[in-house]
Amino acid sequence: MIKGIKIATANCGIKYKNRDDLLLVAFDQPVAVAGTFTTSSTRAASVLQCQKNIKQGKAKALIVNAGNANAFTGKDGEEIVNQIIKSAAKTLNCAEDNIFTSSTGVIGEIFDYKLITNLIPNLVNQAQKADKDSFESAAKAIMTTDTKLKLAFTKSQINGKDVNIVGFAKGSGMIEPNMATMLSYIFTDAKIAANELQNILTESVDKSFNAITVDSDTSTNDTVLMFATGTVENDSDSKFLSKFQEDLDQLTLQLAKMIVVDGEGAKKLIEIEVVGADSKDQAKKTAKAIANSPLVKTAIAGADPNWGRVIMAIGKSCLKADQKKLIVKIGDFQLTKDGGKHPDYVEAQVHQYLKNSEVKIFVDLALENKNTENSAIVWTCDLNEEYIKINKDYRS
Amino acid sequence: MIKGIKIATANCGIKYKNRDDLLLVAFDQPVAVAGTFTTSSTRAASVLQCQKNIKQGKAKALIVNAGNANAFTGKDGEEIVNQIIKSAAKTLNCAEDNIFTSSTGVIGEIFDYKLITNLIPNLVNQAQKADKDSFESAAKAIMTTDTKLKLAFTKSQINGKDVNIVGFAKGSGMIEPNMATMLSYIFTDAKIAANELQNILTESVDKSFNAITVDSDTSTNDTVLMFATGTVENDSDSKFLSKFQEDLDQLTLQLAKMIVVDGEGAKKLIEIEVVGADSKDQAKKTAKAIANSPLVKTAIAGADPNWGRVIMAIGKSCLKADQKKLIVKIGDFQLTKDGGKHPDYVEAQVHQYLKNSEVKIFVDLALENKNTENSAIVWTCDLNEEYIKINKDYRS
Repeated sequence: MIKGIKIATANCGIKYKNRDDLLLVAFDQPVAVAGTFTTSSTRAASVLQCQKNIKQGKAKALIVNAGNANAFTGKDGEEIVNQIIKSAAKTLNCAEDNIFTSSTGVIGEIFDYKLITNLIPNLVNQAQKADKDSFESAAKAIMTTDTKLKLAFTKSQINGKDVNIVGFAKGSGMIEPNMATMLSYIFTDAKIAANELQNILTESVDKSFNAITVDSDTSTNDTVLMFATGTVENDSDSKFLSKFQEDLDQLTLQLAKMIVVDGEGAKKLIEIEVVGADSKDQAKKTAKAIANSPLVKTAIAGADPNWGRVIMAIGKSCLKADQKKLIVKIGDFQLTKDGGKHPDYVEAQVHQYLKNSEVKIFVDLALENKNTENSAIVWTCDLNEEYIKINKDYRS
Repeated sequence: MIKGIKIATANCGIKYKNRDDLLLVAFDQPVAVAGTFTTSSTRAASVLQCQKNIKQGKAKALIVNAGNANAFTGKDGEEIVNQIIKSAAKTLNCAEDNIFTSSTGVIGEIFDYKLITNLIPNLVNQAQKADKDSFESAAKAIMTTDTKLKLAFTKSQINGKDVNIVGFAKGSGMIEPNMATMLSYIFTDAKIAANELQNILTESVDKSFNAITVDSDTSTNDTVLMFATGTVENDSDSKFLSKFQEDLDQLTLQLAKMIVVDGEGAKKLIEIEVVGADSKDQAKKTAKAIANSPLVKTAIAGADPNWGRVIMAIGKSCLKADQKKLIVKIGDFQLTKDGGKHPDYVEAQVHQYLKNSEVKIFVDLALENKNTENSAIVWTCDLNEEYIKINKDYRS
């Protein structure tokens, strides 16, 4: 499927039993790599290390463990990352800064790095070529509270040459990325230089992973890494990359939506579009305010057309809004007119619509006319009793 | 108790049955009034009217209904407020801008103003002098999803003269005031000019109602009004008001905490203190980020010492934080040292502590030394299944 990639998974015993929770992706040759990371000031040791290593733009291997985030673990945490990188670089006979690692799980707990380093030689030996099955194993190995596999494939073209893109992700809580999000890894056999790959990835992430929110919380470990093996000999001139960008955008959005619908306890995908703002930032701010309002999310969970809560969220997030001009729609139903309820509004219709598993909310702030730049789309999920149940005793 | 005030309540039939949901407070003579209001751009008609009327600083009556917020109700909503004010001014023989009204309940629904105006003459006739019982009836009449009465009394002194302060409040969801909060009304018999009263109230609200959050949502109707009848002949020079300010601060904080512990489904009061920030705003931002994190709030609901979630909230809200210097305490237990878990940390002890009904979280961002100005205290409650249950079908 994508040549030049080998994949292996194992159970490392840090937290989980009876499932693989350690992933190795090894590249036959060093490949171009790009990444986006959490903006958190308490980001994990592995994130800090990735940010350092990515500057030279080459990757030989990716190692990810689930069950322990190795975040806020001080010098011990740095040592864990160092030891894993050292061990992998030695086994794979490459430079240490060509190794990328991620961790996900509980924060503030140390683990014995040997649980990982002891397995690396075996993982390297057993690694299989990257096909549908091995990507599936990879996506499974990095799951924590996820209930669903998040894996997507697409084909693209660069100046007439067929290339492939594969991505997988994990994440279902602690999700409001400001820069990147949870863990996601994307692979392509296209030949794209690291700096170009970074531009493409950043643009794509902004419209996908950075446009979703489950609970407004930003993880210490959010990471998106993209690798281009260059095993397809396409023309790598950047002027031929527009179709690739489009296809990547679709793939990252697909993965991002998978994360939202697997939001902890989520039963529904909610799309919130805000137009007519006086800036792109304001549009996103209002869309996020609606998306993060527990009152909006619980109302939708109950299929309750309590649209006053959308008005509330607009009011708190956009102080310039003129309620008399505001347009709010749920699905195709326009709810507002002249600063009040639309005369054609029929509650029972909207109640019925809200029973769907995908719900759309549209807001026109009417602060300006037709500048489509000043708009934003954000995706979130409903808020259910299940979220509370999952998070009240995550660790027990 | 406070002379010059009369109180009456009634059932007006807008929403509730078998309970009073309409409040009239009438002053024998026009009194000094001050107020703070929601910053929402979708604020209710009654709030807009209060903001207009308060400029002249005098109040003859306050009318509050529960069950319908009269928010986002367009011209009809404005007409409702106008008719109530007209009717009350006529009955009480005063200027229309001496009448203050508030509404609380569902957003976006109109009601027949006659349900209120028809009752005003009777309310004025039946109004009783303000004592403990009538203040209790008043506090009850404005409740919506509240489960507990929120009423507080205190005595103060102005230059040796005894004065009284009484306050009551309602609110348990949609609470993260940015300027004012939910509904609260405070009465004193002190003689304080309206502009002075405004300064005192603003300072007090900032440290109480503006320092609480239940669910990060800001209501369209948040209002705090304070009335000074001047029925005690104290020296009204502002230099004698420091004790009064202190006593008012205590009373507003007491009411604010009552709101938090009555947070929808709440079982615990959580106090979050952040010191060592590089600005007061940053301290409050981080305290609010912790207070509003659903993951922190659910962990505390489950008495789970998952303090990594506090680290996460610090990380997302304070990008300058240096994790190696950060100090986090839960109760008296220090959790962090040198960017990792403190060596003396014993999980079982913190788990035990978190079973208390009052929980304290302390954060030293260590960004500066001893400038006590750059700190903030915020109060919130835990997040339980009950919150979801209450809000999934509030209106049914």
